[in-house]
Amino acid sequence: MDDNIKIFKGNIIFTPTKDAFKCHNNAYIVVENGKVSGIYDNLEDKLSKEQIIDCSQMLIVPGFVDLHFHAPQFANRGLGLDKELLPWLETYTFPEEKKYEDIHYAEKIYKRLVHEIWKVGTTRIVFFSSIHSESTELLFDLFDKAKIGAYIGKVNMDRNAPDYILEDTEKSLRETENFILKYKDKSDLVKPIVTPRFVPSCTPELLEGLGELALKYNIPVQSHLSENTHEVAWVKELHPESLNYADVYSKYKLFGQTKTVMAHCVYTTDEEIELMAKNHVYAAHCPHSNYNLSSGIMPVRKFLNTNVSVGLATDVSGCHETSIAKVMVSAIQASKIKWLETNREDIALNTSEVFYLGTKGGGSFFGKVGSFEPGYDFDALIIDDSNLGNIENLTLEERLQRFIYIGDDRNIVDRYVKGTKIKEPEVF
Amino acid sequence: MDDNIKIFKGNIIFTPTKDAFKCHNNAYIVVENGKVSGIYDNLEDKLSKEQIIDCSQMLIVPGFVDLHFHAPQFANRGLGLDKELLPWLETYTFPEEKKYEDIHYAEKIYKRLVHEIWKVGTTRIVFFSSIHSESTELLFDLFDKAKIGAYIGKVNMDRNAPDYILEDTEKSLRETENFILKYKDKSDLVKPIVTPRFVPSCTPELLEGLGELALKYNIPVQSHLSENTHEVAWVKELHPESLNYADVYSKYKLFGQTKTVMAHCVYTTDEEIELMAKNHVYAAHCPHSNYNLSSGIMPVRKFLNTNVSVGLATDVSGCHETSIAKVMVSAIQASKIKWLETNREDIALNTSEVFYLGTKGGGSFFGKVGSFEPGYDFDALIIDDSNLGNIENLTLEERLQRFIYIGDDRNIVDRYVKGTKIKEPEVF
Repeated sequence: MDDNIKIFKGNIIFTPTKDAFKCHNNAYIVVENGKVSGIYDNLEDKLSKEQIIDCSQMLIVPGFVDLHFHAPQFANRGLGLDKELLPWLETYTFPEEKKYEDIHYAEKIYKRLVHEIWKVGTTRIVFFSSIHSESTELLFDLFDKAKIGAYIGKVNMDRNAPDYILEDTEKSLRETENFILKYKDKSDLVKPIVTPRFVPSCTPELLEGLGELALKYNIPVQSHLSENTHEVAWVKELHPESLNYADVYSKYKLFGQTKTVMAHCVYTTDEEIELMAKNHVYAAHCPHSNYNLSSGIMPVRKFLNTNVSVGLATDVSGCHETSIAKVMVSAIQASKIKWLETNREDIALNTSEVFYLGTKGGGSFFGKVGSFEPGYDFDALIIDDSNLGNIENLTLEERLQRFIYIGDDRNIVDRYVKGTKIKEPEVF
Repeated sequence: MDDNIKIFKGNIIFTPTKDAFKCHNNAYIVVENGKVSGIYDNLEDKLSKEQIIDCSQMLIVPGFVDLHFHAPQFANRGLGLDKELLPWLETYTFPEEKKYEDIHYAEKIYKRLVHEIWKVGTTRIVFFSSIHSESTELLFDLFDKAKIGAYIGKVNMDRNAPDYILEDTEKSLRETENFILKYKDKSDLVKPIVTPRFVPSCTPELLEGLGELALKYNIPVQSHLSENTHEVAWVKELHPESLNYADVYSKYKLFGQTKTVMAHCVYTTDEEIELMAKNHVYAAHCPHSNYNLSSGIMPVRKFLNTNVSVGLATDVSGCHETSIAKVMVSAIQASKIKWLETNREDIALNTSEVFYLGTKGGGSFFGKVGSFEPGYDFDALIIDDSNLGNIENLTLEERLQRFIYIGDDRNIVDRYVKGTKIKEPEVF
């Protein structure tokens, strides 16, 4: 027996491309040193001596990837959703984020957060923390300990917000650099990410300093782009010198100069979409949040047609849902309305497309993640769908579709990241 | 102690009107013979001797009402949702409905269905069954036994569907009359409803006969109205003599001549909406289903402004969700997109409005149901929201909003219909 080899037997389904599921009924997936080495209908003799983890009746699928999540808004899920983006920030969001100056409050909520992310089967996630370094470091340590993959960004903001949540520009940059230095090589699974909140919250000096830090240490970047019409108008007012919203980030080397992901992109222009494709900037599609905050519907088909890399995201707490499966449903629904809105030109997303976006699409931001092709990290969920109805006469694709639509965390039996089974995190 | 009196202590919240929640922190609701007699901050002496059911930390809210659900589509939830209405009917829905000619299959699935409806806290529901009398009677008996309130309709259809699911017109009418005679006075909680599938499936002879039966026995009516543009065009083709879709039903006394509910109403014209208001025809708003089948968004604000009675509905299996709480979220989200689509004219629904629609709005179809005003049936859910986050510093309205958005069946501790606690139905 080779301890570096794990073999899983079950019904394997994943999306190497967005256009179709790849299905292996009752097959074996061989994992060596945390990476997929192959999928087989029958095992070679030498492998048949290895230990086999039997999930025969179950589905084995890639773990979910969430490209945009505000950790300090976790306790606000489901609250204040009768408001639009800007008033919602002022009334609910900023006051909640302020609480993370208190490390004890942060510990209480962030432990629940780790448990929730584990529970819903998200195996890789990109987090906004708050402006507070100590709480951000705690968030990092908790995910590192849980062995769930994450990018974690200390938020930067030095204008246009209540005083109690604004930073001094220099201090903001100094603390960000300290965070990067302390954590960039600390963990194999959790990494820092440069995180200007969004253009209206960051002075040109801050944006410039953050772009320099990202380049100096080759750290990825995340921010928000064109979520809401008022926000887009505001950016135009603040930056009349720029061609458009994306151009502001680009000018400060925060738009693909290192690996970058932008959340929302509801009102992104064709020019900006082309710049995203050219600069390999990812779009994090957050349909539930865009509904909840009355923002609108991202024209996701246009991004895919232009070869922009797209992943899915919850955007808690603009989104109340923590499950990427539920975001997949919302993404399909939103694209169907967009199809009607565009006079049936922008074809709606189908199930394989959203599954791709929520696994390999977003997963590629982390490397070889989100698929079961050889060489990919074995990030996986073991799904028991026996309580969702009969499985006889259903294809694997139908069983997976049904799980996405009507399953929940109770159907997820086990979670793996890089071949390691993720234990249930302690909450208290 | 008076056995006809039950007193519940807890945090009581409901919507006597759609415009605001009525909240009673830590109060007593007194139920006599299954009906609410009053809500009190302190109990009078004579009542303090009665047994008190203590739900002090919990929320006490009216049970959910689902105005439109296809019982024989239950096993198809989450399947085939990459299709539009008409191809989805042909490929997934009709073949599944055919199976209900087999009473053993019906028994297996309908027992699961009763359990699911109990689980998600729906206390009153309006069902389409299939064309099969025996399965329809079984569905009736199961809900009667479970003590959950329901209208149950044997489906009628004699044209434009595969042969295996079509009826002979006379037989369809005869079996419907038999069902009405056998069941109209059988149960206090479960009642028959006349159920032409929709205009394209019913010949004029069938519609005429059904209208006569409804009037003869004073039985309510349900059907579908203007779900999809292709369907609306088809009805126009089939009935060039009629003013519009609603006019076809109206001509055959199936549009408010007895109590009537119409599902969807996505493309209902202003004239039709006014006729609905005038004839007191209910609209069952099914936003999840309308998304899933790419139908569109019902202009629900227009219906409310015109004083049409509106309730919420899942429309399983066009909708994958069985929970009316999730339909409430979907209704808010859909109305926010409609707000953008109408250039911010149709104001989006807020939380009290959707809660009203999903309780008292739909509940009024059943009588004094869906509120805790004196004289109302005590249909209630006891909600433990302690696992959803802190409850300190939250109003009851915020706690209820959070439950609607992020809670699930695990938060529902008990369900009551007409003052009787509903036991968990046996599945096998």
